[in-house]
Amino acid sequence: MLLLSAKPVVEKLNHEVFLRVKEVTKKLGRAPKLSVILVGNDPASQIYTSKKGEAAVKLGMLHESHHLPASVTPQEVKKLVDRLNEDPTVDGILIQRPLPKSFIEEEVVYWVDPSKDVDAFHPENAGRLVLGLPCFRPCTPHGVMEILDHYGLSVSGKTACVIGRSSIVGKPLGSLLLQRDATVFQCHSKSPDLKKIAASCDFLFVAVGRMGLVGQDYIKKGAVVVDVGIHRNAQGKVVGDVLFDEVKDIAQAITPVPGGVGPMTIAVLMQNTVWSAEKRAVKSMK
Amino acid sequence: MLLLSAKPVVEKLNHEVFLRVKEVTKKLGRAPKLSVILVGNDPASQIYTSKKGEAAVKLGMLHESHHLPASVTPQEVKKLVDRLNEDPTVDGILIQRPLPKSFIEEEVVYWVDPSKDVDAFHPENAGRLVLGLPCFRPCTPHGVMEILDHYGLSVSGKTACVIGRSSIVGKPLGSLLLQRDATVFQCHSKSPDLKKIAASCDFLFVAVGRMGLVGQDYIKKGAVVVDVGIHRNAQGKVVGDVLFDEVKDIAQAITPVPGGVGPMTIAVLMQNTVWSAEKRAVKSMK
Repeated sequence: MLLLSAKPVVEKLNHEVFLRVKEVTKKLGRAPKLSVILVGNDPASQIYTSKKGEAAVKLGMLHESHHLPASVTPQEVKKLVDRLNEDPTVDGILIQRPLPKSFIEEEVVYWVDPSKDVDAFHPENAGRLVLGLPCFRPCTPHGVMEILDHYGLSVSGKTACVIGRSSIVGKPLGSLLLQRDATVFQCHSKSPDLKKIAASCDFLFVAVGRMGLVGQDYIKKGAVVVDVGIHRNAQGKVVGDVLFDEVKDIAQAITPVPGGVGPMTIAVLMQNTVWSAEKRAVKSMK
Repeated sequence: MLLLSAKPVVEKLNHEVFLRVKEVTKKLGRAPKLSVILVGNDPASQIYTSKKGEAAVKLGMLHESHHLPASVTPQEVKKLVDRLNEDPTVDGILIQRPLPKSFIEEEVVYWVDPSKDVDAFHPENAGRLVLGLPCFRPCTPHGVMEILDHYGLSVSGKTACVIGRSSIVGKPLGSLLLQRDATVFQCHSKSPDLKKIAASCDFLFVAVGRMGLVGQDYIKKGAVVVDVGIHRNAQGKVVGDVLFDEVKDIAQAITPVPGGVGPMTIAVLMQNTVWSAEKRAVKSMK
């Protein structure tokens, strides 16, 4: 069984981004900048945003964090985003989720200018992805594709079961797999005979958010298994949606949790930020 | 076998649109207007655009057709579209495809303002569809859903095989089916063992554009079969992607060609045009 560890993939991608940052910094006369907006005091969100900032700085980029109290109004945040949209030194803007309940997600997705939307949450970017146009990469789904590429696992002409249909993971992952000529079985909580469908597929992607949902009955002998879930179990151990020990001898390859899909998300965010700066550099030369 | 004829569905939808047109005409002080742009002399395109115009007029809407020679430049067409975007009496704008080769589709999809994009081709509208936000309905895929609804065929909890992955039919159809809780098997020319996958599904949607591709081997006993293809065979007869006579005794229900999915496209275009006018009426009241 091949363990699809993120470590060498992240190192390779980060090195590429590091070189691109150097290049684009020369062209722009400034380093690419990522602006992160954090509302409230959710501990997990605080950890995520600070990790994103650290990654940016490590790769030679600038980073600014706007930490606002949970009592801030949507109008105030919108105003800040408007200012960052206008700021020519800001390449990427990210509003950390979840937001307080007073924020309407359907409106918030429109705030960040599509050309700085490094999370790829704006409807225009979601549409560009589906239509196969150049676009910011949805971070977690594209991170999955980078893992497959790194380990030489091609989905072309293969069957790929995606369990989960969120706007952030399941659906864009289905689009990316389809673009690469996989036959995509998009499954979810209402799927009949989910085990049978999953066990018929060459690739299995699990993005449900239910600890230990997927056991040996879901796995075709020799399948590639990608686990997007992350949980802490009763023993305090970090685990995924897949029962790793039950599955590891049936699968050909599997992503570990932790150390699999998780670290890829930030690596792709870094790719998006430098790409945004590169597009700005080309424009400023015209 | 139940024949899924479009006729009663179109009649019902048109009647609803007719009443909505009356209502919104009172509110706006003018009838909804559809502007159609046709470039060149493709005979099929000429027939389609004149059918769209006739349908609009029959339902109490206004219609204007801009027929431009094949020699027109993209810049000139863009200028016309800009003018129509600004025109407060125009609710829907449609650029008939195919366009001459000097037009770059990736640019053209951005021309029509998303709020008047009754074909739902703009990336923002493609994204709104995927994200489940209110949006213009992709005409052919939504027409398929209207047929299923009319005949009481629910895809929820069922398996649905979609053969074809075009941006206009296959992919948006997959999104709509997923929204309605189908488990979607998105298939295409690179799918392994296509017959076996298709024959395992409760619903089969064929949108490949290959005459007579799908025969009895593709059909599960009792399946619902929807044929989006339309061709003229060597005998001059109009036929679909599905071999109707071979399949009709295996399927529970099937759309005929002609008279199945085809007529639905214009009916949904009419829905989109009146919806656009209704949104404008609400805005003008604010």
